[in-house]
Amino acid sequence: MALVVHKYGGSSVADPERIRLVADYIGRARRRGDDVVVAISAMGKTTDQLDRLADDVSTSRPGREMDLLLSSGERISMALLTMALTDLGVPAVSLTGSQAGIITDASHQRARILEVRGDRVRAAVAAGQVVVVAGFQGVSRSRDVTTLGRGGTDTTAVALAAALDADRAEIYTDVSGVFSADPRVVPTARRLTHLSWEELLEMCAAGCPKPDVRAAEFARTHRVRMEIRSSFTWEAGTRVGPEEEVVEQAIVSAIVLEGGEAKVTVAGVADRVGVSATLFGALADRGVNVDMIVQNTSLDGRTDISFTMPISDLDVGLAASRSTLDDIGAADVTADSDIAKVSIIGAGMKTNPGVAATVFRTLAGEQINIEMISTSPIRISVVVHQAEAEQAVQALHGAFGLG
Amino acid sequence: MALVVHKYGGSSVADPERIRLVADYIGRARRRGDDVVVAISAMGKTTDQLDRLADDVSTSRPGREMDLLLSSGERISMALLTMALTDLGVPAVSLTGSQAGIITDASHQRARILEVRGDRVRAAVAAGQVVVVAGFQGVSRSRDVTTLGRGGTDTTAVALAAALDADRAEIYTDVSGVFSADPRVVPTARRLTHLSWEELLEMCAAGCPKPDVRAAEFARTHRVRMEIRSSFTWEAGTRVGPEEEVVEQAIVSAIVLEGGEAKVTVAGVADRVGVSATLFGALADRGVNVDMIVQNTSLDGRTDISFTMPISDLDVGLAASRSTLDDIGAADVTADSDIAKVSIIGAGMKTNPGVAATVFRTLAGEQINIEMISTSPIRISVVVHQAEAEQAVQALHGAFGLG
Repeated sequence: MALVVHKYGGSSVADPERIRLVADYIGRARRRGDDVVVAISAMGKTTDQLDRLADDVSTSRPGREMDLLLSSGERISMALLTMALTDLGVPAVSLTGSQAGIITDASHQRARILEVRGDRVRAAVAAGQVVVVAGFQGVSRSRDVTTLGRGGTDTTAVALAAALDADRAEIYTDVSGVFSADPRVVPTARRLTHLSWEELLEMCAAGCPKPDVRAAEFARTHRVRMEIRSSFTWEAGTRVGPEEEVVEQAIVSAIVLEGGEAKVTVAGVADRVGVSATLFGALADRGVNVDMIVQNTSLDGRTDISFTMPISDLDVGLAASRSTLDDIGAADVTADSDIAKVSIIGAGMKTNPGVAATVFRTLAGEQINIEMISTSPIRISVVVHQAEAEQAVQALHGAFGLG
Repeated sequence: MALVVHKYGGSSVADPERIRLVADYIGRARRRGDDVVVAISAMGKTTDQLDRLADDVSTSRPGREMDLLLSSGERISMALLTMALTDLGVPAVSLTGSQAGIITDASHQRARILEVRGDRVRAAVAAGQVVVVAGFQGVSRSRDVTTLGRGGTDTTAVALAAALDADRAEIYTDVSGVFSADPRVVPTARRLTHLSWEELLEMCAAGCPKPDVRAAEFARTHRVRMEIRSSFTWEAGTRVGPEEEVVEQAIVSAIVLEGGEAKVTVAGVADRVGVSATLFGALADRGVNVDMIVQNTSLDGRTDISFTMPISDLDVGLAASRSTLDDIGAADVTADSDIAKVSIIGAGMKTNPGVAATVFRTLAGEQINIEMISTSPIRISVVVHQAEAEQAVQALHGAFGLG
């Protein structure tokens, strides 16, 4: 008898028909012998609609009230799914984030889970009930409702699985798993049957849209086995777990393309202690999320620092950078929003030193210029011109035989 | 400095524009020196929409889940109103029914308020905040969300006013007060400036749609002053309080018309002890809400019992009545759904014995037949043919000089 946490995202429960289909599927899992705890998102675009309502009444959008507003979406979906289960004769009960004991810090709209007090969930499971928990939300120690930010229900599912010592978290979504590349870009892209936690985390951090990166991180830290799969086809998806269990140990598992970033270059920076701290301190103070950072070798006591950041924050990022020019003795700040990041990810990379060489040779063969490079033990990311990014993904996907 | 509870119904907060208007009005009340606690309903038809969603996924509609579902509507509206207040610089905080300490019994979808632990509300008011409380909902002692049933936000407002020892509860709605008759039926109907608690309760019980009858009862029991007024015109409405303060002490205050009921007659009932208990016990067991009951004088050891009940439950009511025929020795059950109830209400009636005579003379003059009569110290209700009901209201409104 396995205990499995199911996560259903907005598209999986977008309308009453889909809610009934999900209830039917959960009923089948129960009959196969699984105990099931569900983490559920709001129906379809409910959260976006609530967000627009807030825009219509308020520019200040106070965080505590925003969280009370946005958290109502999951209360609707969880109650409806529980009713649908009851109609099928499946004993079920719904719990809000607060009732399920999802304790978070007080950072409204981007709260972090501090603790999961799963007593009420455990008691209901022990009583033979399917427990439907509102995803995306928790409660602070001062009893205020909080939300975890976009994609938060993935984190709810993984955190519940960790707290309940569940066998795995099954993340049901509108894609059938994690792919070796975006099938829209690379038609021969393959669905991966297994990934290590580390690979999934690198892929999420590199821009792979599902699951949410915080869930991937939580799963790695707490060693929660996951499966990313489709609530539309119900076919077997991508299993995520310890590296040693990944059977088909490819050197490279996937190529991930991420757009939406801009490259900022601060030129002629004085090469002295504290320069980076001043520049990136100013960006952090304004909430700018910096991704890759590259600093060139110093020439004549001057250097260039480049970094990537979300295009949506570019004006803020440029202003923050320019405000430091005098302090850091730099000449100028320029930006290029016509870029994209291509990441090559694979746990096998650690023991295969030739991967970087293959990446650079492949891109050179395509006449694609590399603007920035950054690496981790199991990832190589390159920044290229946006217009050449898809060509780069296709060429790399072929070069590593992923098709 | 007065403490005033404002209640805003669904039509008062139907869209973002109306929410901003309500926020502006609350800001004005604050500047005039009032402390304000708000009980708010869900926006517009939200509760109906949620109810239809439940119908789309479930026929069983378990009560606990229904309450979690339906209670989400007020969370949305309360968060939005609080944001709109914040935007106007009015310090405000929202509280769910549970956070506001609205403790109810565990009867889902028709919970009764047992206690209001207003600590968190009082603390916020003392801190200078407008407190926006979700209406219609509470929490049971077992920590489950409950709802109070249709019109429950009126009760929330009055219960809060009682618990906080507020100066009054202002019930903002889409009508501008309580009228001497429905203005659609009687074009000369007048808005009443004052009513006693007892009169309001009789009017609500007789079918006057606003406020909810349970709120009127709560207000009378706990002597909570109310004002029924419009959030569309914001003009002074109808004040409700102790009888001795009603200045213009009319003998009759209002004529109320109620449709939607049917008359059931059980004929040839054996005139012996326990017959009524058997008949109305059977109806109560099936949840049929009986209104007026009339039993004729016995003839030859047999009598007829007639009662009125909601047309919507007529099939159930007839079946229940028929199931008792043998036990109560009755011959037959018949129903007439073509009836309406006209009630004449006025605190002055107690000391003016001529009112009933005027009622009967007026209706006789109109050639309107009376099918049933029931009275209280301050009310006379008659059942007439539906087709003649509006004519009866108009004639009585004129006869008592209410125009």
